[in-house]
Amino acid sequence: MNETIQVMLGHRSIRKFKDAPVAKEQLDVIIEAAQHASTSSNMQAFTVIRITDAGLREQLAVLAGNQAYVSQCPEFLVWCADLHRYERAGARALPEGEEPRSTTENFIVATVDAALAAQNAAVAAESLGLGIVYIGGLRNNPRQVSELLRLPQYVYPVFGMCIGVPDQEPLVRPRLPREAILHENGYCEERIDPAIDQYNVTLSDYMSERTNGKAATSWSQAMAAKKDAPRLHMREFLYGQGFRLE
Amino acid sequence: MNETIQVMLGHRSIRKFKDAPVAKEQLDVIIEAAQHASTSSNMQAFTVIRITDAGLREQLAVLAGNQAYVSQCPEFLVWCADLHRYERAGARALPEGEEPRSTTENFIVATVDAALAAQNAAVAAESLGLGIVYIGGLRNNPRQVSELLRLPQYVYPVFGMCIGVPDQEPLVRPRLPREAILHENGYCEERIDPAIDQYNVTLSDYMSERTNGKAATSWSQAMAAKKDAPRLHMREFLYGQGFRLE
Repeated sequence: MNETIQVMLGHRSIRKFKDAPVAKEQLDVIIEAAQHASTSSNMQAFTVIRITDAGLREQLAVLAGNQAYVSQCPEFLVWCADLHRYERAGARALPEGEEPRSTTENFIVATVDAALAAQNAAVAAESLGLGIVYIGGLRNNPRQVSELLRLPQYVYPVFGMCIGVPDQEPLVRPRLPREAILHENGYCEERIDPAIDQYNVTLSDYMSERTNGKAATSWSQAMAAKKDAPRLHMREFLYGQGFRLE
Repeated sequence: MNETIQVMLGHRSIRKFKDAPVAKEQLDVIIEAAQHASTSSNMQAFTVIRITDAGLREQLAVLAGNQAYVSQCPEFLVWCADLHRYERAGARALPEGEEPRSTTENFIVATVDAALAAQNAAVAAESLGLGIVYIGGLRNNPRQVSELLRLPQYVYPVFGMCIGVPDQEPLVRPRLPREAILHENGYCEERIDPAIDQYNVTLSDYMSERTNGKAATSWSQAMAAKKDAPRLHMREFLYGQGFRLE
């Protein structure tokens, strides 16, 4: 097994970092790796906002649901889906008044482009011995985040990412059985329930070990609990940012 | 610069493959890498469908816009955003009749989860000396693709991926200037137009070199041309699959 694959198989989210900066050369190469990810039709429909201002970090940490590591981590990046640059670029080559339309399709493209780039950044960081965690909590208050970061129309924050030298060694979390994820020539419905049964036990055991027996949460319980954080504001927020899910 | 970062910086899409299979051990490790990507709240909201049936490959190649490499490549994977398994899992721990809701937020989570996993697979494949190309063309006819693959409600094909030993050596495509992509503490609007100017020249030169002077397409021209393939069916298709962008 090569070094690259070892890095990926060793991934676990890091939420506690040493008080050591990420070197400029490291950040440079992390961003370069992000830029080299695949992108739909070369749209490169993402922007990264590096947050170095301490006050801004504090505000983002609160908006993300009081996640202290957002303010404390050495580097915090906000990954945005960005159709603004694409619209500006395309408008130059279109007849006056015509511009690329904001659609569900473009929304998917921009969201995927941001995710592919971010994942390259994550792997690059981990290959340098750094740890990362994605911060979906930025979608708790996306309008406020967008205002703070002066995001123009057609740009939205998909997630944040903390980066730094790990100061904890969490276990790698077990995943669903492979047969639940990888199907052949068609969706295999019969595999789903047995896989959930099996994974409920696996995850419950893992959670029990991780919490010294305090919380043996199964996967079903964890997924049911997601119902309490539905972020029902996302559509209205996205329309406010100019996105059209039409 | 380490091996992992070299792999990422060397990425170029491969559309012509040698007539050599991807070894089972390689595919196994590619899928394992995919499963170890970050996932929002451990939802693991994606499924991969490996297409080994030659007839099915032919049909998908046509539906993706007559992309012959979809039928000819050694391995073809369809990456699906999957909220079906999540709903099934959560329903067990919720009162009868209650189930997790399909929302814009969940749609984002599942699309992002599929993209993060796929990008790990792409990097894993490239680290093994294989080449890949994402096939967004599956969204040209997503309903037909979903029927062929018997996708249940709450599952949709985000993109495909061809994998195999490269039989071509395309140039790495230059990206937007870094300052267009990486901003600090807020979106820097003033950088956008100059970056587009600069990149129009860079890309036009690159395209000219790649096509022996036949097509010196600028980025603006390429982005404007996207207007002709808007995939306006995506919303209706997604609603048909049970997704609610509300």
